[in-house]
Amino acid sequence: MITLGTLVVALDLLGTFVFGLSGGTVAVRRGLDIFGVLVLAGAAALAGGVVRDVLLGATPPAALDDRRYLLVALGAALTAFLFHPVVNRLLKPVMVLDALGLGLFAVTGCRKALEHGLDPLASVLLGVLSAVGGGALRDLLVTEVPRVLREEIYALAALVGAAVVVAGQGLGLAEGPVLIAGVVAASGLRIVSVLRNWSAPRSPWS
Amino acid sequence: MITLGTLVVALDLLGTFVFGLSGGTVAVRRGLDIFGVLVLAGAAALAGGVVRDVLLGATPPAALDDRRYLLVALGAALTAFLFHPVVNRLLKPVMVLDALGLGLFAVTGCRKALEHGLDPLASVLLGVLSAVGGGALRDLLVTEVPRVLREEIYALAALVGAAVVVAGQGLGLAEGPVLIAGVVAASGLRIVSVLRNWSAPRSPWS
Amino acid sequence: MITLGTLVVALDLLGTFVFGLSGGTVAVRRGLDIFGVLVLAGAAALAGGVVRDVLLGATPPAALDDRRYLLVALGAALTAFLFHPVVNRLLKPVMVLDALGLGLFAVTGCRKALEHGLDPLASVLLGVLSAVGGGALRDLLVTEVPRVLREEIYALAALVGAAVVVAGQGLGLAEGPVLIAGVVAASGLRIVSVLRNWSAPRSPWS
Repeated sequence: MITLGTLVVALDLLGTFVFGLSGGTVAVRRGLDIFGVLVLAGAAALAGGVVRDVLLGATPPAALDDRRYLLVALGAALTAFLFHPVVNRLLKPVMVLDALGLGLFAVTGCRKALEHGLDPLASVLLGVLSAVGGGALRDLLVTEVPRVLREEIYALAALVGAAVVVAGQGLGLAEGPVLIAGVVAASGLRIVSVLRNWSAPRSPWS
Repeated sequence: MITLGTLVVALDLLGTFVFGLSGGTVAVRRGLDIFGVLVLAGAAALAGGVVRDVLLGATPPAALDDRRYLLVALGAALTAFLFHPVVNRLLKPVMVLDALGLGLFAVTGCRKALEHGLDPLASVLLGVLSAVGGGALRDLLVTEVPRVLREEIYALAALVGAAVVVAGQGLGLAEGPVLIAGVVAASGLRIVSVLRNWSAPRSPWS
Repeated sequence: MITLGTLVVALDLLGTFVFGLSGGTVAVRRGLDIFGVLVLAGAAALAGGVVRDVLLGATPPAALDDRRYLLVALGAALTAFLFHPVVNRLLKPVMVLDALGLGLFAVTGCRKALEHGLDPLASVLLGVLSAVGGGALRDLLVTEVPRVLREEIYALAALVGAAVVVAGQGLGLAEGPVLIAGVVAASGLRIVSVLRNWSAPRSPWS
């Protein structure tokens, strides 16, 4: 029987792994060496959660306090380093991994904020920040404009996932299914929007 | 009758709005979509205050804890998105908005640091950090060298505004007028220096 | 007689100075004005320690709480500004200064983490973060890919220095010599690896 606590940690570690894989894959594509792969995978995997925990005042952050996060990030880096062709055979792997991490961290970040007593609006924002932080640092470190700015439906997808968590709590629904629904909503919206080329409105003046 | 507490919050929210407007305007000029505008406006509006509060250990930061900051940042983003030509008709709007935010955050950041018991020198530095943080993140996110580095009299203007606050407190002057004098000094110095093309010394060896 | 506490602060301030000098030298080379030199020197000198202290929840960070850090960073900026040719006559000055700062901060950061009760693995990671944080911010501010990603043996050198500290504590060795050995190991490995052009393995697939 999976408890709720186990589910939340599992989602968070899974987000750490897929973001780490996205960072490691970007690093290999750029021809970085093993240490560059470790750094970029670590930044992508851990930065979002670190930002979340620092903003909540929950220091030291889980990434430092709970050894599993580090080991998972390390595993993601080594997987990207050693099995690059396998990862690369996925359809648009960086996009898909990044979308999964986005949904997972939006949901776990929002939930942790609610647990710490932040109000719903602030909790949604913290979910979005946790979700976009790791990917933004990954992209900035290789001096690319982060995809949260370049890409259509991205911050919105994270926001939808976090909003599902807030709404589910407000309606008193069972938390486990709500968390999974949030991940599916956020990651699904992100992936579908890329594959279908959905675009968001631009300012009529731009 | 305006109390001092009201004045400080009003200055801080005004800084949030004008920095948000500067971020939103940069985003519209770059042709980003509505979510990119929200992200860049939010980053410019809130990052300086978040850095300030995290460094003071005042977590969660006001940007998350007090709903008005989020709403003001959102309003700035929507204003930039919808009324870009109006904003753009201002003289050098990004520069002017950025200069106003610079002065407002230098003053409120320095005051908050003094309140938390930091010594005068550290309080001035924290004022400067709050003032330059949001604009620096805005510029980094679109991979531009932040104007704190590119531009002459910028960090200096923030430093002057913060120093006015410290000096006013040291001299026991009425705090309301001192805060406003600090904003006028910092923002004014910044704007005049751009319009008159003042420049700071370069290393004789550069 | 030098006490251990004095030695640790001395190493930390020395790291602050050499990182500040590296930031100031980069700024002068780029033709930035005096305020740009101050900002880049300050960012390089102080960011690593600030990240370390924020992650440990030790706020306000030493860089704000202890005036010596600010004064040392200021001194480094002015030295770079005024004596650029002297600094520049050193062999690859930015690399050497950066390597020294890397070793010094890896060691003091790891030690501070152990003192705060983090486990060995997390303490090594925090040492690495303190060591690479200042240089990464310096490089990002001028929109360069940070050398922690560009360069071979860099994060590894910091990791070796931090590991020496953890191992020394585990073996119960006298702390003073262990700290110095860690600095020598990290900075030495970094410098030798650049001079000898050592390279780290790349992914067979990159």
